[in-house]
Amino acid sequence: MPHPFVRLQPRMGRRLREGAPWAFSNEIVMDAPTKALPPGSLVNLQGDDGARFGTAIFNPHSLISARLVSGNENEVLSADFFASRLGEAARLRDAAIGVPHYRLIHAEGDFLPGLVIDRYGDLFVCQIGARGMMDAVDALTMALRKTLGARTIVIKGDRLTAERESIDLAEPLIVGAVPAHPRLTENDLAFAFDPVGGQKTGWFFDQRANRAIAARFARGSRALDLFCHTGGFGLTAIAGGASEAVCVDASERALALVKESAEVQGVAARVTTRKADVLETLSDLGADRFGVVVCDPPAFAKTRKDIEPAARAYQKLARECARLVEPGGVLALASCSHHMDPLRFAELNREGIRKAGRKARLIATRGADMDHPVHPALPETAYLKFNLYVLS
Amino acid sequence: MPHPFVRLQPRMGRRLREGAPWAFSNEIVMDAPTKALPPGSLVNLQGDDGARFGTAIFNPHSLISARLVSGNENEVLSADFFASRLGEAARLRDAAIGVPHYRLIHAEGDFLPGLVIDRYGDLFVCQIGARGMMDAVDALTMALRKTLGARTIVIKGDRLTAERESIDLAEPLIVGAVPAHPRLTENDLAFAFDPVGGQKTGWFFDQRANRAIAARFARGSRALDLFCHTGGFGLTAIAGGASEAVCVDASERALALVKESAEVQGVAARVTTRKADVLETLSDLGADRFGVVVCDPPAFAKTRKDIEPAARAYQKLARECARLVEPGGVLALASCSHHMDPLRFAELNREGIRKAGRKARLIATRGADMDHPVHPALPETAYLKFNLYVLS
Repeated sequence: MPHPFVRLQPRMGRRLREGAPWAFSNEIVMDAPTKALPPGSLVNLQGDDGARFGTAIFNPHSLISARLVSGNENEVLSADFFASRLGEAARLRDAAIGVPHYRLIHAEGDFLPGLVIDRYGDLFVCQIGARGMMDAVDALTMALRKTLGARTIVIKGDRLTAERESIDLAEPLIVGAVPAHPRLTENDLAFAFDPVGGQKTGWFFDQRANRAIAARFARGSRALDLFCHTGGFGLTAIAGGASEAVCVDASERALALVKESAEVQGVAARVTTRKADVLETLSDLGADRFGVVVCDPPAFAKTRKDIEPAARAYQKLARECARLVEPGGVLALASCSHHMDPLRFAELNREGIRKAGRKARLIATRGADMDHPVHPALPETAYLKFNLYVLS
Repeated sequence: MPHPFVRLQPRMGRRLREGAPWAFSNEIVMDAPTKALPPGSLVNLQGDDGARFGTAIFNPHSLISARLVSGNENEVLSADFFASRLGEAARLRDAAIGVPHYRLIHAEGDFLPGLVIDRYGDLFVCQIGARGMMDAVDALTMALRKTLGARTIVIKGDRLTAERESIDLAEPLIVGAVPAHPRLTENDLAFAFDPVGGQKTGWFFDQRANRAIAARFARGSRALDLFCHTGGFGLTAIAGGASEAVCVDASERALALVKESAEVQGVAARVTTRKADVLETLSDLGADRFGVVVCDPPAFAKTRKDIEPAARAYQKLARECARLVEPGGVLALASCSHHMDPLRFAELNREGIRKAGRKARLIATRGADMDHPVHPALPETAYLKFNLYVLS
């Protein structure tokens, strides 16, 4: 059965013709039959000039009402559809990353809106953010098993979109058995993680390459990993030769994973965890100094109106962190707020470091690793900023 | 003997107080004694409020009249001064890069205006762009020998600044003996290069990490290296498993080095060189397709007024190159024009790729490698842009 057509208002096709994957509700002819389409319906999206954009997931209640999933009309989100997309995405990651532990699907960046999948060998964690994807979850599961040999699939919701998209995933769906002590591989290191109870998919692969470059400067020095979550930066610094890593986070559960990973890696004696508010810790640390300081806070600017308070917080963190870096040491400052512009973030860091009385060289400006593709028409999906400084 | 003082005009110290390393001629009190200072003089730079910025290289004939070399007053560019700076710069690179083949000094990025040094083991190539550095070349040479065991030092001028700075280096100065067949190491590969007759210092280390990431996608496919210069991208792709690299450049001398490197690496049978204008070649290639296409042209926008023609050229290159990429292959587009803004460059690439009828994922947005630090107050010194796309 063909999909229903959804039409754009007159003169509204320009962005889509230029490659954008979305149509906003005000761009769409919201007549009665269109408004009545159930959230998650697949539709054929058409311009008022007859331009045909392909198949979209439709939700009349969402600001972004139509999200393209295919350039073909009447595309069905079948197991075959997913098999082809997943296979191609895996080939790209296998080349880019080299081990089967990576972000397999990065939503619009992989032309699959509302779907994030992280792969941990034969364990996959899916985050569903669109009703149309939720409706296709059986086909997705089948494709993951058949194409990529999935043995365990954890399907989670996304707190931010669950209500709007009518997705009921307060408890994750689990297909197969979750191992008692799941392990992932990153930068040749084994880490413990929690695919079910952990934040998002349980691990942030986006910082993989950044953890590796910060660790190059760790030999013989102490590392401080602030907002450490599961300890990726601190433990990678230990592998790079740091004498000690101090990992600070407010979450007891995250710190338990840091300790477990340190045991697995045989470096528990060199890892100190500290359950604390990072801003308080920064003043407590007093005269303590480190060769590597990493500060990777949660998103401070979740909406546009948070930008100015977030800016003050980033600048303050840069200043406080700069004080803790030994002469010649490195300072890594990250932001995952997509509302915070990269140039502004660099400027805030510069100003914070200057206020600490330190002189800096910026040696790397990076984003997320290569398994997090950016849709070229959605540069704002390049949310992660990572600036690495050497301080004199 | 203390340096003469040079004073800023009233209310002109703000940028310097915020960390900028330069004072422009219109910011300075150009009285008769100041105007009479010989180009290259060392001076103590002072604000009209008495603020003391330290020692600067001064040139009354240059738009950028004063360039700070030290926060201390009366600093002398002695062998000891250079020994300390070179030692610290080398420690940073040894950590970041791992082999002693790198950009050792990156001008303002290392707080040494008018000085670029590339290190190839015990062979060093210096590019001098400020008269004050030229005057200190003996001290520099001594420090390179003593601190870093330099056996050969090649000292070259910079065509753009030679006249303004009264630097007579039409012929390079050479200290020690240049080996008949000099070799450098990059990404574990040996390359031939020409430290005396080659462009700039003979090699572009800035693309080291970018060559490595592009090569990850080369296995089993053909690579096309456009504006290949000494063949870094093409040969690194071969090492990554490419079946063939086609290297295109207009310079016979550069291509001779590509061939020599291919011999050294034992891969000459898989490397094709083509002396040609790249834009003409692009249309000649017809139906030929590649798994990896790299386009790293010389700076199209050397001044602000070149920006629009440069923009058209970048977009055209993106379009023509996109046509040559196999489905699932990667396209690497670079610009070393510092007048071309990174967001604009990404936008031009996106539009070019779209005009070629191709769908893209942007998997990496990178700049120069970590041995090319950026002065935080001079973000425009981050000249290199490198965008890596996967094309469907």
